[in-house]
Amino acid sequence: VEQIAEEISLFFPEKRFIIVHGGGSYGHPLAKQYAIRDGLTHEEQKIGFCLTHQAMQQLNIKVVTIFINRKLPVYTISSSSIFIIKDHEIIDGSIMTIIKLLEQGFIPLLYGDTALDSEKRIGILSGDQLIAYLACTLRPERVIFLIDVNGICHKNPTVFHDAPVIEHFDRKTLNTLISDNTDSGTDTTGGIFNKIDQALKMPCPVHLINGHIKGNITKLLKGDTVGTLICSSAVME
Amino acid sequence: VEQIAEEISLFFPEKRFIIVHGGGSYGHPLAKQYAIRDGLTHEEQKIGFCLTHQAMQQLNIKVVTIFINRKLPVYTISSSSIFIIKDHEIIDGSIMTIIKLLEQGFIPLLYGDTALDSEKRIGILSGDQLIAYLACTLRPERVIFLIDVNGICHKNPTVFHDAPVIEHFDRKTLNTLISDNTDSGTDTTGGIFNKIDQALKMPCPVHLINGHIKGNITKLLKGDTVGTLICSSAVME
Repeated sequence: VEQIAEEISLFFPEKRFIIVHGGGSYGHPLAKQYAIRDGLTHEEQKIGFCLTHQAMQQLNIKVVTIFINRKLPVYTISSSSIFIIKDHEIIDGSIMTIIKLLEQGFIPLLYGDTALDSEKRIGILSGDQLIAYLACTLRPERVIFLIDVNGICHKNPTVFHDAPVIEHFDRKTLNTLISDNTDSGTDTTGGIFNKIDQALKMPCPVHLINGHIKGNITKLLKGDTVGTLICSSAVME
Repeated sequence: VEQIAEEISLFFPEKRFIIVHGGGSYGHPLAKQYAIRDGLTHEEQKIGFCLTHQAMQQLNIKVVTIFINRKLPVYTISSSSIFIIKDHEIIDGSIMTIIKLLEQGFIPLLYGDTALDSEKRIGILSGDQLIAYLACTLRPERVIFLIDVNGICHKNPTVFHDAPVIEHFDRKTLNTLISDNTDSGTDTTGGIFNKIDQALKMPCPVHLINGHIKGNITKLLKGDTVGTLICSSAVME
């Protein structure tokens, strides 16, 4: 995160940013333990819902502090305070404060979190779903996913280290990946598949780059080719 | 806070609650240092705005943890994520998630915080203003302010320890207090005066009771007379 903050500070305020982080080791274990994704079926889950939110707030403070220490005016907007979900997708909400923060020269930061579900009562709003919603609503120049491999590959790159990165990925590539290459497809984490699904919904170029490699964000923002670029048909037309 | 949580747990879930806390030693010093209440006039205040919000999130985690440890399903809604202010008052916002939390049997918790101001760009939304807004919107059975003295007195009770508590306070009492007793009026903290101003706007009985005295919340919720009761004319009609 230190590295990410350093690279963003090279481009801010000339470029505007919204940052979204996930649950990492903070949110996921508690969400799993209390089966939050399944909805509210027994009373004990209520405390689990609150505890998971607390854990995410704790992670959020750690992340934001790193950005603020770099003099970046990062301000947290709590996704569970503004959005209602249904089946893991946002169905209602107001992004008024996010827009205002951007207008005033701040960097809004959101995170995947527990959320109220209109049918199952409680659920999880993942950072990826959150980004897709914001991309569709705010129509940014681009979306950048920071992942732990160099991009999307036909074979799982955490197993096949020499698997070449797919530079341009579109809906047709997805079909190839699933129909011609089911094995490597299921080897890839569900995480990547969800990111691809979400990316294909977005009305802007979506980059998946290795967040562990110093200089990757800088290269990308300077116009170099890094990682995988996903374009939905809407963008390509 | 341990004591407050214990007493609330005697009445929940039969009674529903919304909890609001202030800035204490966390928010106020930073808000003052960066003159957040004055609005955004120079760039350095941006970091101060973010730091004050962070400090409030840290306090919030401490407070909420105490309630969760008592098995109370307390869930934080971030006021700065849902409200826009103008001159310290809420002028726009959505309380959708607060209503949903109440419906699902949770205890929403909010806190005074930094907020985006429609004219001065940034500002402070105090816990008292927040409570007034929620009281006018949600029309609860009552509002309880936990203060550090036994109630409102004609003389400042932190100086005049034997000053008798005013049991029933209305707009006429306020006039007496200000016109007949300006000295004790200015001795009283602005804090109490703001609470009275806000209380007089609310469409429900407002109690000011000593939060340091064990059993006060319990007594009040059982129907006993404790501290000062403020009724606006709207309530008395």
